[in-house]
Amino acid sequence: MKGYFITLEGVEGSGKSTQVRLIKEYLEGLGYKVLTTFEPGDTEVGKEIRRILLSPDNTELVSRAELLLYVAERAQHVFELVKPSLAKGKIVISDRYTDATLAYQGYARGLNQKLIEELNVIATEGLEPDLTLLLDIDPQISLQRAKQVTAQNHYKGDRIEAEKISFHQRVREGYLDLANKKERIELIDAKQSIEDIFNSIKIILQKRLIRDEN
Amino acid sequence: MKGYFITLEGVEGSGKSTQVRLIKEYLEGLGYKVLTTFEPGDTEVGKEIRRILLSPDNTELVSRAELLLYVAERAQHVFELVKPSLAKGKIVISDRYTDATLAYQGYARGLNQKLIEELNVIATEGLEPDLTLLLDIDPQISLQRAKQVTAQNHYKGDRIEAEKISFHQRVREGYLDLANKKERIELIDAKQSIEDIFNSIKIILQKRLIRDEN
Repeated sequence: MKGYFITLEGVEGSGKSTQVRLIKEYLEGLGYKVLTTFEPGDTEVGKEIRRILLSPDNTELVSRAELLLYVAERAQHVFELVKPSLAKGKIVISDRYTDATLAYQGYARGLNQKLIEELNVIATEGLEPDLTLLLDIDPQISLQRAKQVTAQNHYKGDRIEAEKISFHQRVREGYLDLANKKERIELIDAKQSIEDIFNSIKIILQKRLIRDEN
Repeated sequence: MKGYFITLEGVEGSGKSTQVRLIKEYLEGLGYKVLTTFEPGDTEVGKEIRRILLSPDNTELVSRAELLLYVAERAQHVFELVKPSLAKGKIVISDRYTDATLAYQGYARGLNQKLIEELNVIATEGLEPDLTLLLDIDPQISLQRAKQVTAQNHYKGDRIEAEKISFHQRVREGYLDLANKKERIELIDAKQSIEDIFNSIKIILQKRLIRDEN
């Protein structure tokens, strides 16, 4: 009973939340106990931090404060949800985790990568995912998708979505660079249909879960 | 025009805010331009972070997340208020700053001092006060005072005030230890009357401001 920690990463609109749902159903069907979660905002304290981070009114939020808020939210998330569930032997699937901070605040905002890595270690006490699924897609396509959903909900979009396309391109490039460097990150083509993305993920899960559990 | 940065520190109810007001009036009378400010919560983003930190409902807030929220608030405060005012040659007087995090999260909560110092440097980009006035008083006395004010305002007290007396004793001891180590911290007996505290402060200001300006 050591648990297994899966994270999903990708630019806005890359389809992470849909896949989180499908993976959960699939793994539960195989008899696993699964907790799905997300950052930022899946705890009571995290919800309040999320509001600050994503409010389009907080245009004066300085990069350093933004970074520290993301890692504060992560500290609460890991302590309150991730670690207790892993300790019970569950599979924890988190929509975003440490790589997101490297991609968004590091590669895209230009904050120091080493500083972010140190803060990630402080926040998580060194807890790394066992497996990270990176849903890779050109943000020009995925943001279009995100905006359609946004418009349907009569919602004006958040502070991150409002960034220029070049920002989202840097996020994508950051993620791809991380995937090159870290063995735990599996790259998935998220231009595919939902079914095809999920099939790619299933193949990875069958290979990795079995390998890592033994 | 380099500005001058004064911070006030002390346990709850030690009388900092009253002295901040008196110092401001005094220095303005001498022709200085003065900005008074406080942590946490003197910016729009800071106000929202303060709400999370002090809400008595957030009992599940983990120490690490609390620490990171304090330094996130500080990053915003320094960037938005302190540095721009110092750059204009003003005297900035802040009710609490980096020492508070060392005293409360370090000495009292038991988090690693070196970690807190690193986070303080990250948040402030290394900006240290020129002078720190530590209003020292037994928290048994000062909390009684704070509670009377609280009751008058029909306010139920915040998450930090609700800590046990032993917590506040550790905060006081932490502050005293810092005063021993750092030349910039001046110790003031806050058991005295408001007038006598302010007279002690005036003597320090006359000595330090003149010395540090030359």
